[in-house]
Amino acid sequence: MWAEQVGRKPVPVQLLGEHIVLVREKDEIFALHDRCPHRGVPLSLGRRQYEGTISCPYHGWTYRLDSGEMCAALTDGPESPINNKVSVSTYPVAQRLGLVWVYVGDGDPPPVERDIPDELVDNEFTMGGRWDIREGNWRFAAENGFDEGHAKYLHNTALWRLFKVMPAWNKTRIVEKDGWLIRVQDEVHWEADFPGLGTWTNKRWWKRMPLPDAPGKSADINPVIKSLEIPGFVSIRLPGLLRVAYPHFIHYEWYVPVDEERVRYVQIMVRFESGVRASAFKAKYLAAIRWLFHGQFTGQDAWMVDVMDAPPEKLYRPDLSLTAWRRHIESERPTVQVDRTPGAKR
Amino acid sequence: MWAEQVGRKPVPVQLLGEHIVLVREKDEIFALHDRCPHRGVPLSLGRRQYEGTISCPYHGWTYRLDSGEMCAALTDGPESPINNKVSVSTYPVAQRLGLVWVYVGDGDPPPVERDIPDELVDNEFTMGGRWDIREGNWRFAAENGFDEGHAKYLHNTALWRLFKVMPAWNKTRIVEKDGWLIRVQDEVHWEADFPGLGTWTNKRWWKRMPLPDAPGKSADINPVIKSLEIPGFVSIRLPGLLRVAYPHFIHYEWYVPVDEERVRYVQIMVRFESGVRASAFKAKYLAAIRWLFHGQFTGQDAWMVDVMDAPPEKLYRPDLSLTAWRRHIESERPTVQVDRTPGAKR
Amino acid sequence: MWAEQVGRKPVPVQLLGEHIVLVREKDEIFALHDRCPHRGVPLSLGRRQYEGTISCPYHGWTYRLDSGEMCAALTDGPESPINNKVSVSTYPVAQRLGLVWVYVGDGDPPPVERDIPDELVDNEFTMGGRWDIREGNWRFAAENGFDEGHAKYLHNTALWRLFKVMPAWNKTRIVEKDGWLIRVQDEVHWEADFPGLGTWTNKRWWKRMPLPDAPGKSADINPVIKSLEIPGFVSIRLPGLLRVAYPHFIHYEWYVPVDEERVRYVQIMVRFESGVRASAFKAKYLAAIRWLFHGQFTGQDAWMVDVMDAPPEKLYRPDLSLTAWRRHIESERPTVQVDRTPGAKR
Repeated sequence: MWAEQVGRKPVPVQLLGEHIVLVREKDEIFALHDRCPHRGVPLSLGRRQYEGTISCPYHGWTYRLDSGEMCAALTDGPESPINNKVSVSTYPVAQRLGLVWVYVGDGDPPPVERDIPDELVDNEFTMGGRWDIREGNWRFAAENGFDEGHAKYLHNTALWRLFKVMPAWNKTRIVEKDGWLIRVQDEVHWEADFPGLGTWTNKRWWKRMPLPDAPGKSADINPVIKSLEIPGFVSIRLPGLLRVAYPHFIHYEWYVPVDEERVRYVQIMVRFESGVRASAFKAKYLAAIRWLFHGQFTGQDAWMVDVMDAPPEKLYRPDLSLTAWRRHIESERPTVQVDRTPGAKR
Repeated sequence: MWAEQVGRKPVPVQLLGEHIVLVREKDEIFALHDRCPHRGVPLSLGRRQYEGTISCPYHGWTYRLDSGEMCAALTDGPESPINNKVSVSTYPVAQRLGLVWVYVGDGDPPPVERDIPDELVDNEFTMGGRWDIREGNWRFAAENGFDEGHAKYLHNTALWRLFKVMPAWNKTRIVEKDGWLIRVQDEVHWEADFPGLGTWTNKRWWKRMPLPDAPGKSADINPVIKSLEIPGFVSIRLPGLLRVAYPHFIHYEWYVPVDEERVRYVQIMVRFESGVRASAFKAKYLAAIRWLFHGQFTGQDAWMVDVMDAPPEKLYRPDLSLTAWRRHIESERPTVQVDRTPGAKR
Repeated sequence: MWAEQVGRKPVPVQLLGEHIVLVREKDEIFALHDRCPHRGVPLSLGRRQYEGTISCPYHGWTYRLDSGEMCAALTDGPESPINNKVSVSTYPVAQRLGLVWVYVGDGDPPPVERDIPDELVDNEFTMGGRWDIREGNWRFAAENGFDEGHAKYLHNTALWRLFKVMPAWNKTRIVEKDGWLIRVQDEVHWEADFPGLGTWTNKRWWKRMPLPDAPGKSADINPVIKSLEIPGFVSIRLPGLLRVAYPHFIHYEWYVPVDEERVRYVQIMVRFESGVRASAFKAKYLAAIRWLFHGQFTGQDAWMVDVMDAPPEKLYRPDLSLTAWRRHIESERPTVQVDRTPGAKR
């Protein structure tokens, strides 16, 4: 979620099945396991009574935000034998891109930059974004993001594409570059005749012909985006990050599992500009992109992820995007697994 | 459902646990398994883009309505290797009595007339009707329909019976004739004295004495109904069809399982007349019968079917109607069974 | 529930997982198992047609309220072979304190006075009260009632305590007297300094210093309460009855299991007075105590009982109140157990 949405008042969130409470103390945000070990009351219902701590609302067990250590069981006095004997798990937290990043894995956390595209670390940019909790498993959401086939059909009713043609069908290859899987188009077809049915095309007299299928092929291109030398329009990488590169801006989306049934879907639109052009983009984002693209367009994806029911499945040629992504996950993270035993966190 | 309720727009229905999509193309109605085999999206969310087909909304896999064959994966072009290699199940559909009839069994479908009473095939008539999805298993609904005991008690508060007395208790026999089980009354008692309690009767000073317990005993009777020579008021037959014969009209109800918990309850009221008398009946149906009989009266049955909780059960003498019906089912369809494995259809 | 809430119209209630119907006939209240053995319809939906009986709405099986005997299957006539051959369980019922008391155990019921404090049997008093169905298991509710630790923290925001200080922490002993477990305070601390955190106290400049921790230590005390010689503020006893004794009134609460997930929570406030002072108390109860104490204050307890999630649990020193109570239950009723098989009642 946005860092500015976390204040002194505790905020409960669920990530990868874990119940976590987020709280802010001055500029810092802390994340703790959202369960008082005494009797299981959520700490997110608690009080912020003493600086740098949170207290369970039931008996006033008071935890340090930085260590999770229970430093005072208020209702048993300063000499309570249990003081400093109990603790709750804490989670490493970072703030980047205006978002809160929480590490829920075991062991030392990797640098948060591992989950953020390099171009957002090294360059100046302006951005707009939104996040939603959506129905469906995160893997369906990620597969839908990188799916070669559906955009041409599902999204041909999207307002975002009202003035731009989309292809009728492509021949596609998946390329790996800089840790990303990228969909590269070998053939792009703008219309197709199906004998006995009729013509299939997204062309309409009022629609402009589309963007090149890779931003690098565009004559007019932002220099930062040009320097990325991305050979295709859409890329994906672990842990579940999609990149859709236009000549002048890039759309990113993160698929963060809430639990098996829901995904926290974070979208940002980035423009590598500053000054007046950055301000103009911010205005355009709020006026149009936010609801046209990050709302109605990706809302069509959310609809499919929600109603999808697989396996069983029968794949077709464009689904090489899905199988490449599945192979990639298996080779990079062969043993990803979540222990769902209640209270099993560490 | 009514045939006129199915148009070009796909309609999802559930029958015997199967998810089915109904669509109309001109005068014909088609039924397909409501699941695209690609990724499991319901076809009932799809588009009607090309004549005689339906397309999955996700990737545009397009199916022929008549054969279920996937004739075009639009987003993979005309030469897609998967074209014509995939299909969804189709279900035989008929239109009779203004209703849609779908065969969900295996093998060749029997003639739909097997599920429609002969008198509705051979004669001219006029009718009114309604259907509802009701809570409860279809067997409870059917047993309630043929149940000898309850009407006298449960329905003695029904407005439909406000001006007609019902018996206090009967002695009953079950007779089989023309494939129907029929409740035949050997004794009809209009009142009863229960020592220590008082009198039990449905008689009131403002109520007319009732109809004969079999329509054939009535002096003034419609010739078609007379020709049926039904020896009792209420009959039942497989696959779950009840007939309540009055001297001038007949009420039918079908119990169609939605799933284990719900039943599609179809009621029609038939009068074997034409011309002015038919029109008068239509008007009377809409003005009164529809809400008095097909609404409040059978709504009392729906209430009981919903709250009933058996087994265990303790049966009494009038329940010979239930046990005769249960024996009849076992002897006629000894192996009726539904495979509820997800996606197990064919 | 209140006896005056039960009239001729049947009232369904659930107690210890059993479904029971309550009905009144003149001054007497009867309790029967709420399921007609014929087809499982709840008798609480039935009719009160003949004196001293209730009839199932479906087929008119009619049961004597006093014995549960089915004396007439109305719709099978006075000679029905099943008359007097079937019965439903009945439950002993008493009316005390304006409440209905139902015994759902097996065997002969103990005197209802066993579940009512002696002081309410032997003395004149006036009272106000309320009951609610609350979320959570009854054991959590009872443990919360006798819990030494939480009041000082959870309730320090309660309006009921707006003008009275509560301790910061205590040293406590559990004493058994007259069948009650009683929390006795060995030390009472009004404030505490926690190094590095700050001061913890409920003292405010506008708050009066609190009542003595045991009513008997008060100079001005009601003679009946004085005679009880209760050595502490809060007591508990089986089957789930809490007593909070103030110098001039006593609050009682009963935890009656509805099922595993819900508890019927009955609260009364008693004053051993009569005449004008009793009337004044009644008015004060309705104007203030009912919503301040029996509403907002104990509503905070209901909140915790609802969100609590244990085991696992980690206990601290004040939880000796919980462990004493758990040991007490085990020693008094070592084999309490409910058969939850549907229809298993007797």
